[in-house]
Amino acid sequence: MFPLNTWYVAARSEEIPADRPLSRRICNQPMAFFRNSSGVAAAVLDFCPHRGAPLSLGKVEGDTLVCGYHGLAMGCDGKTVSMPCQRVRGFPAIRSFPVHEAHGFVWVWPGDVAKANTALVPHFEWQGNPAFAYGGGLYHIACDYRLMIDNLMDLTHETYVHSNSIGQKEIDEVPCRTRVDGDHVITERYMEGIEAPPFWKMALRLNELPDDKPVDRWQICHFTPPSHVMIEVGVALAGHGGHAAPDAVKAASWVVDFITPETDTSMHYFWGMARKFKPQDESLTHQIREGQGKIFGEDLEMLERQQKNLSNFPDRKLLMLNIDAGGVQSRKLIDRLIAAEQAPAAQASSAQGVAA
Amino acid sequence: MFPLNTWYVAARSEEIPADRPLSRRICNQPMAFFRNSSGVAAAVLDFCPHRGAPLSLGKVEGDTLVCGYHGLAMGCDGKTVSMPCQRVRGFPAIRSFPVHEAHGFVWVWPGDVAKANTALVPHFEWQGNPAFAYGGGLYHIACDYRLMIDNLMDLTHETYVHSNSIGQKEIDEVPCRTRVDGDHVITERYMEGIEAPPFWKMALRLNELPDDKPVDRWQICHFTPPSHVMIEVGVALAGHGGHAAPDAVKAASWVVDFITPETDTSMHYFWGMARKFKPQDESLTHQIREGQGKIFGEDLEMLERQQKNLSNFPDRKLLMLNIDAGGVQSRKLIDRLIAAEQAPAAQASSAQGVAA
Amino acid sequence: MFPLNTWYVAARSEEIPADRPLSRRICNQPMAFFRNSSGVAAAVLDFCPHRGAPLSLGKVEGDTLVCGYHGLAMGCDGKTVSMPCQRVRGFPAIRSFPVHEAHGFVWVWPGDVAKANTALVPHFEWQGNPAFAYGGGLYHIACDYRLMIDNLMDLTHETYVHSNSIGQKEIDEVPCRTRVDGDHVITERYMEGIEAPPFWKMALRLNELPDDKPVDRWQICHFTPPSHVMIEVGVALAGHGGHAAPDAVKAASWVVDFITPETDTSMHYFWGMARKFKPQDESLTHQIREGQGKIFGEDLEMLERQQKNLSNFPDRKLLMLNIDAGGVQSRKLIDRLIAAEQAPAAQASSAQGVAA
Repeated sequence: MFPLNTWYVAARSEEIPADRPLSRRICNQPMAFFRNSSGVAAAVLDFCPHRGAPLSLGKVEGDTLVCGYHGLAMGCDGKTVSMPCQRVRGFPAIRSFPVHEAHGFVWVWPGDVAKANTALVPHFEWQGNPAFAYGGGLYHIACDYRLMIDNLMDLTHETYVHSNSIGQKEIDEVPCRTRVDGDHVITERYMEGIEAPPFWKMALRLNELPDDKPVDRWQICHFTPPSHVMIEVGVALAGHGGHAAPDAVKAASWVVDFITPETDTSMHYFWGMARKFKPQDESLTHQIREGQGKIFGEDLEMLERQQKNLSNFPDRKLLMLNIDAGGVQSRKLIDRLIAAEQAPAAQASSAQGVAA
Repeated sequence: MFPLNTWYVAARSEEIPADRPLSRRICNQPMAFFRNSSGVAAAVLDFCPHRGAPLSLGKVEGDTLVCGYHGLAMGCDGKTVSMPCQRVRGFPAIRSFPVHEAHGFVWVWPGDVAKANTALVPHFEWQGNPAFAYGGGLYHIACDYRLMIDNLMDLTHETYVHSNSIGQKEIDEVPCRTRVDGDHVITERYMEGIEAPPFWKMALRLNELPDDKPVDRWQICHFTPPSHVMIEVGVALAGHGGHAAPDAVKAASWVVDFITPETDTSMHYFWGMARKFKPQDESLTHQIREGQGKIFGEDLEMLERQQKNLSNFPDRKLLMLNIDAGGVQSRKLIDRLIAAEQAPAAQASSAQGVAA
Repeated sequence: MFPLNTWYVAARSEEIPADRPLSRRICNQPMAFFRNSSGVAAAVLDFCPHRGAPLSLGKVEGDTLVCGYHGLAMGCDGKTVSMPCQRVRGFPAIRSFPVHEAHGFVWVWPGDVAKANTALVPHFEWQGNPAFAYGGGLYHIACDYRLMIDNLMDLTHETYVHSNSIGQKEIDEVPCRTRVDGDHVITERYMEGIEAPPFWKMALRLNELPDDKPVDRWQICHFTPPSHVMIEVGVALAGHGGHAAPDAVKAASWVVDFITPETDTSMHYFWGMARKFKPQDESLTHQIREGQGKIFGEDLEMLERQQKNLSNFPDRKLLMLNIDAGGVQSRKLIDRLIAAEQAPAAQASSAQGVAA
């Protein structure tokens, strides 16, 4: 269950080079992504109308994706442009999907084309902002995308899953607070006067700050629909105001999580970090990405085995503790979006009832 | 969906040595193939009547296949011959399948034994003919066997799938023609005054002909039921009559395709080439087989991913273009055979209706 | 189909170290095994009541298994002991399973807790007996556990499956005899004046006896519910009384087989040998275990392919020969146990019928 009339991250820009299509299933739809001759990205159903071959096995030529089986040239709009020795006017169109590219990500709208609006593509503080440097990657995880939202909206798990890197005992000893502000769920936790965990010690050192002094640490998780979780994280030398401390005494970042359903029980997880210090240092970007990739990889087995357990015991009710409030509230927003998508049909049929 | 009362190629002769059985599923039936003491091949259901062990894990002794679990000795006719310390007269028989071996291939009849007739095993020009040399191999492909028939009855795909070897632009620029002659579908294409593609250049050189002169090229695909596709292919130096040119100025071959259903969505593909030049040169046979194996392997991913797409979108109608006529006509013949197999039952029940 | 109100071997003791849980599915239930601070083994459902994570990904702390996701501490009785910053009194319990450990094995009772009785854990002659040395291992096999019982209660298969080690022609030439004594099925076979097979030649040599003299060989298979097969095996120099001969002229052992259903079509196979000679020689234990592991591994492919065949032809009736009597009688005992477990419910509903 996922909303369809919304924008999801489909790919990082570099995954779709000028000359080669990308095959990716999103919200149960197999899609072929490619760029036209101007470099503009497009997405069509990965299904050639001729004989059902996957278009993503073909190659890009001009403004078309040429099927690798018999040479049908598919346009960005799902209409066949040409095919050797064939008149193609009567060929049925296949589905195309609205695409929008911005700041290194390709977004796709898997639902009703008439409702697609690029003004709805979200924008985040760190995007296109020279004060930040972004690095990230992509994991494929065999679990319902909502399990990842639960995971990220309750960072208590860091103490256990990431005990050797970013986890520390103080996280689950300091209560978190969750609040909802319209379509925005915020879960925040502040730890004061603690020792920095290994990952942040590294960040402090790289930022030319001592790593053996007490710090104030914050984690502010922001969920926005359909499945974006941006987390403000950082440490400041203790006593300078924590999250509000000046840049000179802290190391701070956005943890960036774009979560895209593949099927009902699998997802594409675009993880990354946008840091606010030394943004020009590319080797630092690389180093942090390596570290984050390792840490975020620690969640995979837990999430996939949790999914198996839940599939195995579908009737079992889970607990909703205060630490789960972030996930619970996020899922409520998602449920509301799904209900709203199904509502028009219900209204229409009810209207018909009135008309009759 | 496949006809059952017909002969399929089950194996190449060398796959069934004198002392070892072969396990192969054909038309959804697991079969154990083995040779009796005279070397005559037989096929029985791969299921020991004792405890259900696969007989193909056993070994050949005399005229029997001895089960590798408890020693039941199975005869070529599906009847138990002996078992240590057991009287076997009352043992239930298992199914045996009519087998015929000829020219390096073992054929099997998966349907009604009463209708099996070795006179119906097809014979092809190149078989047992010293003017030809055959080399070939076997691929297992996870797709409906009819997708391979479509593939072979429309060689347009060579331009795209085999663009680095036998494919060339002229193929999809020259129209093909399809005609049906009884139980025989022919799709043919003639290209004149073109440059030979890499594979044929090699063949010309091996045939001591220049590879840099214009050639006339032909492709004549012959489908015969249930799923044999023999393709006359070749090039002649341009202006000598093409397909009708004398052997001295051409390189010609039969592409041999025996296609045997394994399950509804998988098949055994016996591919090969019977060439009409230098038939005694075994290293040439080897070299051509290597090349062909590589080229024909290029179709595998396309066919398997096409099958997945079709399984994923079962209701989607595909296009039937002129280039698809060969496959369309071949499928019509197959459908007619299947209908004919099911007809007797219908007639019998209708006859009963009359009698009542 | 398996009895639930009974003890199964769940693990060898060394599989559950003090500090690490073991995940194992038994009779379709995923279980997490761990030890409390006194080393006593416990088993709980491998499902954290908080968010469904597998507890077996956690770690042992004190008397609890701490979930590796958010730190819920689970007690040996399935009740939550604590969780950081949470009151856990109202947390629902998960299922715990009675466990008993003895002589290197951890037993579990997957059924009705109220009926669990450690007095029912079986004891075998070789257990805790200094005259014996045990060595063994564990195989996971994708077949119904009863196929392994059939396998072991009819050693005729040794002639075929193990022809290069313990098998020999005499086994299937000498009839076996099966008898039932209450809940105990015995199949026995005695071979006199034969040549010892390779495995027993090795045992004779290790036992400082000649390996080139005729021997008397015995195989006495004992089945006891739910799925234990203990096999007395050995050879004595011919003419000294065979099974009854003095230890000085023989090499004898118990083959130990604990068979535990994992799912309906898979099992855990705890195989081993308890030998009655040179029990202190640990390198001999190691050597024999290596040999046995190799031999018993030869059954795996046969059993798994037999299972596939039976799943493929579910309606086919198998033969019940005299050599199958051991398995047939063992299955009758199993069926009786299953029926008895279902009977109380039937009686209760019939009693209700009377009451109404």
